[in-house]
Amino acid sequence: MQPRVHIITLGVSDLDRAKHFYVDGLGWPAMLHVPDEVIFVQVGPGLLLGLFTGLAEDAGVAGFSDPASAPISLAHNVDTEDQVATVLAQAKASGGTIVKQAQPSAVGFVHGYFRDPFGFLWEIACNPGLTFHPDGRIEFAEPTG
Amino acid sequence: MQPRVHIITLGVSDLDRAKHFYVDGLGWPAMLHVPDEVIFVQVGPGLLLGLFTGLAEDAGVAGFSDPASAPISLAHNVDTEDQVATVLAQAKASGGTIVKQAQPSAVGFVHGYFRDPFGFLWEIACNPGLTFHPDGRIEFAEPTG
Repeated sequence: MQPRVHIITLGVSDLDRAKHFYVDGLGWPAMLHVPDEVIFVQVGPGLLLGLFTGLAEDAGVAGFSDPASAPISLAHNVDTEDQVATVLAQAKASGGTIVKQAQPSAVGFVHGYFRDPFGFLWEIACNPGLTFHPDGRIEFAEPTG
Repeated sequence: MQPRVHIITLGVSDLDRAKHFYVDGLGWPAMLHVPDEVIFVQVGPGLLLGLFTGLAEDAGVAGFSDPASAPISLAHNVDTEDQVATVLAQAKASGGTIVKQAQPSAVGFVHGYFRDPFGFLWEIACNPGLTFHPDGRIEFAEPTG
């Protein structure tokens, strides 16, 4: 198995609500939208975010717990410290909830967290120790931790 | 907020166990490994998978539920239908659990699901209707659903 993720699928209970936040609120373009079922948004080179109402059935599992208790976070990195608060405010204005205001993390870089309307956790970070190059390469300036 | 995910962070309870599965088992190279704390693996152009023991504390949230009940899935797409079963078998041999054996999905393409040792859900799919081009572009051949 190659080290490769192509799609991050969030199991959502209400696709209109997901559209309202991600597409209408954050302004993310839907590549594909099957009403009441799924929306796909491209969120990186070769990477899709799926908002899917049928995940439990598709996987053949009994059901899920509240997204707010899911031990997972999606991180979106920004270039300047000011942008952390700006993005958190935009998420809030779109119907999200700020969980952690922009502040220094334990290792020093500025970050914050919000939840989408379902409870899924997103981190917004300005981490000078971690560079995402335009060609897809990723570089750690120094060990963090 | 740009439509961009840089890091998928899975909150894990035991970093050695995460390393045993993802690094030793699946053979994914760790870009950064801070013992007992975090492992980062590059899982796409400009995309990291973080296996992190401190997610709840970092986000400032009280705690999380069982990863097995988290309404989220990470999809890994393969080129041939045969590879779906091969990858599921490799995941099982590495300590994962097959949730759904390779079989046609509701919309026809071959897929299956496994859980990592913590319970996080992964989909393996061979979807001819969805092309991930080498330059990062993504193409839907036709509406799926």
